[in-house]
Amino acid sequence: MRLKINKELSLPVYRQFIDGIKEQILSGTLPAGFVLPPERKLAAENDVSRTTVVRAYDELKALGLVASYRGKGTVVTDKKEPSHRENPNVFPLSWYPLFEKKLENVSDTITDLMDVGSRQDTISFAAGVGAPELYPINQLKIIQNDSACTSEVLNLSAVEGYYPLRESLSQLMERRGISTSAKEVMILSGSMQGIDFAARTFLSPGDAVIVEEPTFLQAIQCFRAAGARIIGIPLDREGIRTDVLEAQLGRYKPKFIYTIPTFHNPTGIVMSLERRMELLRIAYKYQVPILEDDPYSEIRFLPQKLPPLKALDHYGYVIYLNTFSKVLFPGMRVGWVVAPAPVRKKFTLLKQITDLHVNTPAQYVLDQFLREGHYEPHLERELTIYEKKRNIMVSALKQAEGLVGFDVPDGGFYLWCRIPYTIPQKQLLSLCASKGVLYTPGSVFYPQESDGEHLLRLNFTYESRERIEKGISIFIEAVKKLSKHNTKMDSIIEEYRPLV
Amino acid sequence: MRLKINKELSLPVYRQFIDGIKEQILSGTLPAGFVLPPERKLAAENDVSRTTVVRAYDELKALGLVASYRGKGTVVTDKKEPSHRENPNVFPLSWYPLFEKKLENVSDTITDLMDVGSRQDTISFAAGVGAPELYPINQLKIIQNDSACTSEVLNLSAVEGYYPLRESLSQLMERRGISTSAKEVMILSGSMQGIDFAARTFLSPGDAVIVEEPTFLQAIQCFRAAGARIIGIPLDREGIRTDVLEAQLGRYKPKFIYTIPTFHNPTGIVMSLERRMELLRIAYKYQVPILEDDPYSEIRFLPQKLPPLKALDHYGYVIYLNTFSKVLFPGMRVGWVVAPAPVRKKFTLLKQITDLHVNTPAQYVLDQFLREGHYEPHLERELTIYEKKRNIMVSALKQAEGLVGFDVPDGGFYLWCRIPYTIPQKQLLSLCASKGVLYTPGSVFYPQESDGEHLLRLNFTYESRERIEKGISIFIEAVKKLSKHNTKMDSIIEEYRPLV
Repeated sequence: MRLKINKELSLPVYRQFIDGIKEQILSGTLPAGFVLPPERKLAAENDVSRTTVVRAYDELKALGLVASYRGKGTVVTDKKEPSHRENPNVFPLSWYPLFEKKLENVSDTITDLMDVGSRQDTISFAAGVGAPELYPINQLKIIQNDSACTSEVLNLSAVEGYYPLRESLSQLMERRGISTSAKEVMILSGSMQGIDFAARTFLSPGDAVIVEEPTFLQAIQCFRAAGARIIGIPLDREGIRTDVLEAQLGRYKPKFIYTIPTFHNPTGIVMSLERRMELLRIAYKYQVPILEDDPYSEIRFLPQKLPPLKALDHYGYVIYLNTFSKVLFPGMRVGWVVAPAPVRKKFTLLKQITDLHVNTPAQYVLDQFLREGHYEPHLERELTIYEKKRNIMVSALKQAEGLVGFDVPDGGFYLWCRIPYTIPQKQLLSLCASKGVLYTPGSVFYPQESDGEHLLRLNFTYESRERIEKGISIFIEAVKKLSKHNTKMDSIIEEYRPLV
Repeated sequence: MRLKINKELSLPVYRQFIDGIKEQILSGTLPAGFVLPPERKLAAENDVSRTTVVRAYDELKALGLVASYRGKGTVVTDKKEPSHRENPNVFPLSWYPLFEKKLENVSDTITDLMDVGSRQDTISFAAGVGAPELYPINQLKIIQNDSACTSEVLNLSAVEGYYPLRESLSQLMERRGISTSAKEVMILSGSMQGIDFAARTFLSPGDAVIVEEPTFLQAIQCFRAAGARIIGIPLDREGIRTDVLEAQLGRYKPKFIYTIPTFHNPTGIVMSLERRMELLRIAYKYQVPILEDDPYSEIRFLPQKLPPLKALDHYGYVIYLNTFSKVLFPGMRVGWVVAPAPVRKKFTLLKQITDLHVNTPAQYVLDQFLREGHYEPHLERELTIYEKKRNIMVSALKQAEGLVGFDVPDGGFYLWCRIPYTIPQKQLLSLCASKGVLYTPGSVFYPQESDGEHLLRLNFTYESRERIEKGISIFIEAVKKLSKHNTKMDSIIEEYRPLV
């Protein structure tokens, strides 16, 4: 039995010798029951002193890896045995008492939805993504084959992001009325990471944060995980109710205001210009920063567009988040933030201790895609199709004979619908799921899940036109089946206004 | 002057009309000083009532976007003006009082180092990465051109990770003696995200966490950001001092023990088998989970290998972290965790509210790379070269005439060196930097930065052999220049033992 011994090494010979045998036992090379050679023999074979072998065998015995039996010699034991034998009273660890309390408020609705959504046979109106068949695969292939596979692109990149992409994005921002330098743009792993970083930068347990009610599900989860008090401000068709907001600001001292001003998720509402200016006035007056989440503003079916809050803010109160996930590839997980220097510094520290930087190849190919001018034409192609899909879903829902109320949004990804009070949401949800149709119930968008019982969100961008029609007719059947037949049209309309 | 009006829309005509003008003003299409047409004329041109135009102009005036001058008409103002005029007393926001206190403990050493390291003319021994010239670019290209560019690969994937990669990794784990199913493996954005998730899952401010002293810089930063008390346990050449650990466990009730048992960063120490078993015994006895960070175990220049703690743990106390960043592409930011179900559930919730999932294309190509059997041959090629590089650095350092003390590690990425007490680290660091050589000072690896003043870490994998020799000779010159000449050899040796 020969063992690899290298007398050049700093590791002492006896240690190499011992480890060598241990490794063979633990790796199973020397199985349980294997009889080791007599000490003298092993010493000779490996040109080491007998003391070394004796010492080795003793150590192995002490560890319970081998045992000596008179007349039989030194035998390898079952290596799983010792730890059990050594610790007769080891108990399985009870994890839950060790966990941080704050996380208990976070629920896992999303993974559940994504799980079901990933099934082939399911028509999903619950998704928050665009149509995969529209991805500009060919342009991406060309970029990747040309230049994306270099050691530079596969190596670490700067924490703040790949500089050329930051340049390209500052130009994209320019076109949206936000004049910013490349240095002010920081690349994130999706805009959601910006929400998480804002929570970690500003929120201590018990701190207040203002959100629109309803609002983006994961933002609620994220603020809950920070242990924050989430103050919901109602919306009307002009956006956040700034009058209610200002009243609340007297009572609470929120760390920031989270808002989705353009094609709000889930309602599709566009905040009017005067509300935007009013919101800024209030932020200035009460010295509260604004976290502007803007993933949907480019999914716009009308020429009219309103400037983002960031473009109207001349005092640096607004932290602006955006992402490639709605217009391009959600699987790449690339978003960005435009923020004042002190905030960027904190975000950079957080990036350093969480995931260091965004996947470099993804940053590279997205930069090339922008530089080669593919972005705008691609967006136009998408908009034509998404507008058609919206129209298909809208006219399909018309067959609900007034049972389903909604506004027709001029952009974004969603229809925000109201169903009669007589229909229990849980029943509708499971009935639809049983028929292979998935949507998002309204309550998950409310911080306290206290409201939204009779509201729901339908995504119109992900599924094909055929599946939209099929899915909506299944949905309507379910609604009709569950709605009491004595419900009157007008009473529905009553319920339906105001929408939020 | 024609405006796009669509009477089909839910958006009222007057609103479209107003927004249309606003957009043209805010986008600069109607520049400051532009005179708007008389109300009657504009109404006619756009086939809207005069009231609509009057209302529009009034609203624009209210917003300060236009002003009326007798005899001149309605003129566009400088759009930046109004907000100033409206809010004479707006102050720039003072951000710092709003920030969470815990983050103040986090320093940005790392970005600084990375910045300098990225300069062409700098020889960096500070990096924690392998040699970019060894990346298996060609195999990666083939995978990408063949199949990586599909709408499936560019779409969202499961929060826990791309399932085929989880399968491949469970097989890789099997080869390391860790028997696990694909479901038990979760993909992370680098193994560092696992450290952050563990901190967020277990640590409330004031909680104790055990680390080896010295230890991985970013782990310290991460635990600081959680507001934890970081208890450092000294190492010797057998690894963490379990006797000291057990003594400390009497006093503190740590939430978990963070350890890098194999080719420890920064010291390169391999925890002996008996220490591993002792550490597990203590964890079982005191019911403390272990966070095992294992990025370097495959960078091994000797046949002898010891099983990871996870392989020796029969009671599910160990959370095991690993990464592709040391053996493959650090820029892809892909790591993984093998953990008990309750921990995985918490990590999944955190993944959901931070970055949703790891970049799908990266997960796909890495899975293919493993499935096509490229991993092991690639690793072997790397090891031959890294061992040569280690030897080159070691013999280059011999010329320091005993001024620089170190153990020769049998693997990993680093040499952990001691310099004479007579040399101030700051001076050496800046002298080397001025000559274009970068290394990592020892103190950053100590939780309190109280120690390590005369220790430093040299990476031997990143730079070319030529640049290693050049850089080390510059380093040695600097050491000699700063060391008092009356320092005796033996006194150095004295200082040098024990190394940590």
